[in-house]
Amino acid sequence: MRTTETLAQFIATCDSTRIPPAVRHEAARCLVNWAACALGGAGHPAVESALAALGPFVGAPQANLIGRGERVDALNAALFNGISSHVLDFDDTHMATLVHPSGPVISALLALAQYRPIDGRAFAEAIAIGIDVECRVAAAVSPQHYDQGWHITGTAGGFGAAAAAGRALNLDPQRMTHALGIAATQAAGLREMFGSMCKSLHPGKAAQNGLGAALMAAAGFTSSTSSIEGARGFAHVMCSEPHLAEATEGLAEHWHILDNSYKPYACGLVIHPVIDACLALHRQEGFAVQAVEQVQVQAHPLVLELTGKKTPGNGLEGKFSVFHSAAVALLKGVVTANDFSDEVVRDPAVIAMRARVGVTTAAGIAEDAAEVSIRLKGGRILKQRIEHALGSTNCPMSDKDIEGKFRDLAEGVLSADRVARALDMCWQVSALADAGTIGEALAT
Amino acid sequence: MRTTETLAQFIATCDSTRIPPAVRHEAARCLVNWAACALGGAGHPAVESALAALGPFVGAPQANLIGRGERVDALNAALFNGISSHVLDFDDTHMATLVHPSGPVISALLALAQYRPIDGRAFAEAIAIGIDVECRVAAAVSPQHYDQGWHITGTAGGFGAAAAAGRALNLDPQRMTHALGIAATQAAGLREMFGSMCKSLHPGKAAQNGLGAALMAAAGFTSSTSSIEGARGFAHVMCSEPHLAEATEGLAEHWHILDNSYKPYACGLVIHPVIDACLALHRQEGFAVQAVEQVQVQAHPLVLELTGKKTPGNGLEGKFSVFHSAAVALLKGVVTANDFSDEVVRDPAVIAMRARVGVTTAAGIAEDAAEVSIRLKGGRILKQRIEHALGSTNCPMSDKDIEGKFRDLAEGVLSADRVARALDMCWQVSALADAGTIGEALAT
Repeated sequence: MRTTETLAQFIATCDSTRIPPAVRHEAARCLVNWAACALGGAGHPAVESALAALGPFVGAPQANLIGRGERVDALNAALFNGISSHVLDFDDTHMATLVHPSGPVISALLALAQYRPIDGRAFAEAIAIGIDVECRVAAAVSPQHYDQGWHITGTAGGFGAAAAAGRALNLDPQRMTHALGIAATQAAGLREMFGSMCKSLHPGKAAQNGLGAALMAAAGFTSSTSSIEGARGFAHVMCSEPHLAEATEGLAEHWHILDNSYKPYACGLVIHPVIDACLALHRQEGFAVQAVEQVQVQAHPLVLELTGKKTPGNGLEGKFSVFHSAAVALLKGVVTANDFSDEVVRDPAVIAMRARVGVTTAAGIAEDAAEVSIRLKGGRILKQRIEHALGSTNCPMSDKDIEGKFRDLAEGVLSADRVARALDMCWQVSALADAGTIGEALAT
Repeated sequence: MRTTETLAQFIATCDSTRIPPAVRHEAARCLVNWAACALGGAGHPAVESALAALGPFVGAPQANLIGRGERVDALNAALFNGISSHVLDFDDTHMATLVHPSGPVISALLALAQYRPIDGRAFAEAIAIGIDVECRVAAAVSPQHYDQGWHITGTAGGFGAAAAAGRALNLDPQRMTHALGIAATQAAGLREMFGSMCKSLHPGKAAQNGLGAALMAAAGFTSSTSSIEGARGFAHVMCSEPHLAEATEGLAEHWHILDNSYKPYACGLVIHPVIDACLALHRQEGFAVQAVEQVQVQAHPLVLELTGKKTPGNGLEGKFSVFHSAAVALLKGVVTANDFSDEVVRDPAVIAMRARVGVTTAAGIAEDAAEVSIRLKGGRILKQRIEHALGSTNCPMSDKDIEGKFRDLAEGVLSADRVARALDMCWQVSALADAGTIGEALAT
């Protein structure tokens, strides 16, 4: 089984006509969501310190940093935008593998498009193909690879970025094979880094290395031709139980981008059904913030295991507190990225509401379900059950939901007219003559 | 056991007075040998195509490419020089771990020194500390890590580069811990790539990523503080049988740089005793090339296993042919890097001599030993036994040997007066006011 060459052949030769409209549209949804996350993360200290460190070494101003004013060389733009897109832990997720697909792929591709024009249709196709290859390579080593300690967005991400960039560069199958190999031999990213800035470095480096791999292969740089399946290749070295067939089965029939999911709230996924329930309660007749005496959450056991922080002290801890998240949703009736800031976590009103929240868990409740009941002053009880959280496979975020997320995260970064223009360009990406213009539209 | 913090503490605080003169001198030997290899590799197609691909993205001309005319930003100089230094498979080897230590460390450090002056004494110390940390991290995962398929020069190399650069940047122990973490989470390089250009990419990327890690940590970028020993850290994720104590035992007492070895011939190590024997035969009284009728080599079984190519077709195959190597040594009485070129491998005189060479192997012969006997026309027999090959632990290359290697590889790249000046600077590195000047001295 020549896994690497089969994937390279697909990337290089998959005809446009085989890419369905739904796949193209999902590419646009990925783009809007990616841009939203990168705009929201652009001012994060991780981005600031990476830029302070590496700024003196960047090359010609070829590409924009999303949500910022700097222009740098395309390889470094891929790096910095990759960091921005992941640093809020708010980006997309391919649930079957836990890959966050768009960070590596779109950060690489947009930077390339600003350096070397790519028409919008080819750009959207390259997103779809890049994400497909990324998720396929990830599936080939799942779940053991992640369990062993690899941050799969860092490792599989490089393949996705190389595939997208290689497709856009029109690499032939042989050079595409080498591009995948050059990416394979740079695959990296340890889960030990979770909780530090290095976590967001992983998609940044995957984007940069993957783009570099495609450019190097284009110039004749060579790798092994069996970088994925070889005895000392990616799958066997970085996984003790690979499933290589996953990488190539159903190519151009099943598109993994269609399994992608988006987060409506900038906090741990397991809290999301709880937030949905609280937001629905807020809208119920008779609800009044001042009347809430007690809040009882029933949820899946992982909720307390992963997000059981009863008294978070800062924004980051708030992202992993079901208590804080429920309190904010009930108080405000909306949950934005800013609700996981230090300021909101330390707000006395939030703290007071948080104190009223109790959580019980039961293995019988699905991970994407929850029930919340509120006792109001006077004894009245309001109840809300959520079967499938917004953003889960069974209840995907609508285009409007994703657009709302974009507006929320873009606010204060882009001016209102730029928000409208950038959104329009992202949705209409396939119609753009030059997709690289999106980079400028998303900069300040 | 806080492996990472212990190493970081050592790197940041090891007093100059604890670094013995022999260690400093070995750093100079590493530097001369590294420079020789980089000069020899500077025009290789791997370097040319990497430069063609990445040239449009490099930054300000801060540092030189060894053996070339270009100046690029320091991070890219580290990358390109790291490729050049390894691409001939002629660089140094830490036999216990199979790390090639100098490529990642010196490529990173010299590029940094050209950007931000480092005095020669601190430079030599940073080489010694970088190589020590690199070999220690490698020892902590040896031998399983390499056996599993990791190119250990790529993986451990980033730690060495980060350590050397972090030392030169005077990082405090906390930032040095983060520098090691940023390097750890980029550790990569698959043995599947052997035989392709990607093999030399590994030390290049290790140099670039390690230097970047130190610069990022200096600017406040954070990582895990247990990147090596953590449950999802480098040692446990990338090795199933780590020996963490190897990383920290005897710090500042045993210096691994003193175990470093250098290759006198640009071909497989196992052939080296055979070449030594042939060179000695060439010098024996009564030897005449035209009189050689038959050559009988007795050697360790690995010689035929790894280098049994009877009729090599090009230079690369010649590097793995004991027959070609013996023929060249007997014909010329000297073996240079150029003797593994396509031209020499296809030389009729070499082919004719090659045809007279026979090899038998026996498990009783040591890997660094060999015996060669020649039957001359008229029936006279000349014999030569080598107990320890030049460059092996028991017969290290002398300073003069390494200098000869430098002159051989520098020939045709640097002018004669530049050769003399560059050699002098490398040997006297500890006395230089600005070690970065070596970079310019090694450029064309």
